[in-house]
Amino acid sequence: MTKQIHNLLNYKDLKIVQDTELFNFSLDSVLLANFVTINTKVKNILDIGTGNAPIPILLTTRTNSKITAIEIQKQSYDLAKESIEMNKLSEKIDLILGDINDYYKNLESDVYDVITCNPPFFKTSDNSRLNNEVGKTIARHEKTLDLDSIFKVSKKLLKNNGRIAIVHRVDRLVDIICTMRKYNIEPKKIRLVYPKVGKEANILLIEGTKNGQTGLKFMPPLYAHNEDGSYTEEVKKYFG
Amino acid sequence: MTKQIHNLLNYKDLKIVQDTELFNFSLDSVLLANFVTINTKVKNILDIGTGNAPIPILLTTRTNSKITAIEIQKQSYDLAKESIEMNKLSEKIDLILGDINDYYKNLESDVYDVITCNPPFFKTSDNSRLNNEVGKTIARHEKTLDLDSIFKVSKKLLKNNGRIAIVHRVDRLVDIICTMRKYNIEPKKIRLVYPKVGKEANILLIEGTKNGQTGLKFMPPLYAHNEDGSYTEEVKKYFG
Repeated sequence: MTKQIHNLLNYKDLKIVQDTELFNFSLDSVLLANFVTINTKVKNILDIGTGNAPIPILLTTRTNSKITAIEIQKQSYDLAKESIEMNKLSEKIDLILGDINDYYKNLESDVYDVITCNPPFFKTSDNSRLNNEVGKTIARHEKTLDLDSIFKVSKKLLKNNGRIAIVHRVDRLVDIICTMRKYNIEPKKIRLVYPKVGKEANILLIEGTKNGQTGLKFMPPLYAHNEDGSYTEEVKKYFG
Repeated sequence: MTKQIHNLLNYKDLKIVQDTELFNFSLDSVLLANFVTINTKVKNILDIGTGNAPIPILLTTRTNSKITAIEIQKQSYDLAKESIEMNKLSEKIDLILGDINDYYKNLESDVYDVITCNPPFFKTSDNSRLNNEVGKTIARHEKTLDLDSIFKVSKKLLKNNGRIAIVHRVDRLVDIICTMRKYNIEPKKIRLVYPKVGKEANILLIEGTKNGQTGLKFMPPLYAHNEDGSYTEEVKKYFG
């Protein structure tokens, strides 16, 4: 196993342990951790399918609230544990090895202010993209964590007016919105990520409110790269 | 009644008659007429709630197909008729005075390749915005033409894989998408209109396909104004 220590946010000196053979944290997680609305009232956060825990680790720079992070894969869980300990964040982040689809059934309802999720991006039916390695397959495909389960779980676990924010592919927006509505989670805020000026958006950040009123806002677009392929100033700011 | 002759597209020398006491054509109609997908296979187009017919008139610069335009208000209908005749477009545009909610019932199904609509932007329940003048109220509020009726009518009248494109307020996106899905119209293409760089999007162009497959694309954002308040180059291009 090849381990990499990646300096995630140099201005905060956070580090995250990655394994090149597993699915690694990406720009998506960084964008989501910066996109989700966090105010001073937030006491409890849940990150579903946390992987090697980039979102909880990043969120500790924005809030002092308790963060619970759950991951189904032992390898990713071990890396997450290592990163959390390395950054001395064990007091703030409660890491759980398990399947949210089972785990949430034993939890009380209406307990979280905020839920975050960087879910698998591809439907299990997208066979052409299925990866031979089980680890990558679980992280990339909706084998264990599809849109329906994310929002079903969120409907139970979120407090009234609590928020769920996810990052996903733009072409799934219609499914996302319809599934949110199915579970009384009203989409409130979207930000589109464009690879560069003049291209179609590829990534989508979306936040909804449990039992929220209708009224969606689109934030200014976020461009990932400049014309010459370098990161834009906004993205550089997130990475330090 | 005060009439204005507005030079709508100077490079085509099209003119449109407006009445300052009625709801007038706006940037929204110009953007929609340029946004909707028109290919060489398109034979029949329907514009619902055409007002003074800016969309059909503009579409004649993009296609030779037959365009049917329907308007419920006699005053707007008269202005549309005048504009169509003035531009010598009576052969191309078939103008109808009537309520689409009744009119469509007598039409055959699966007849149109493309439907366009710049519908009323406000719900009838938005009483604070209700306008005293009946003409403006019908044009601005969903009194006679709400989202449900637009897509119900489209489901019947569109050919299989036919397209419906509308312009609306961004905060109605969730309702639009869910209503489209309700009538088996799959959202395929969205373009957001931002008043200027750095602001939230306010206007939305969306196109869906009857019985279409899942897969939504977001076009590059469209900015209406520059920092100094002047129209951007793209918008100027539409107005000439």
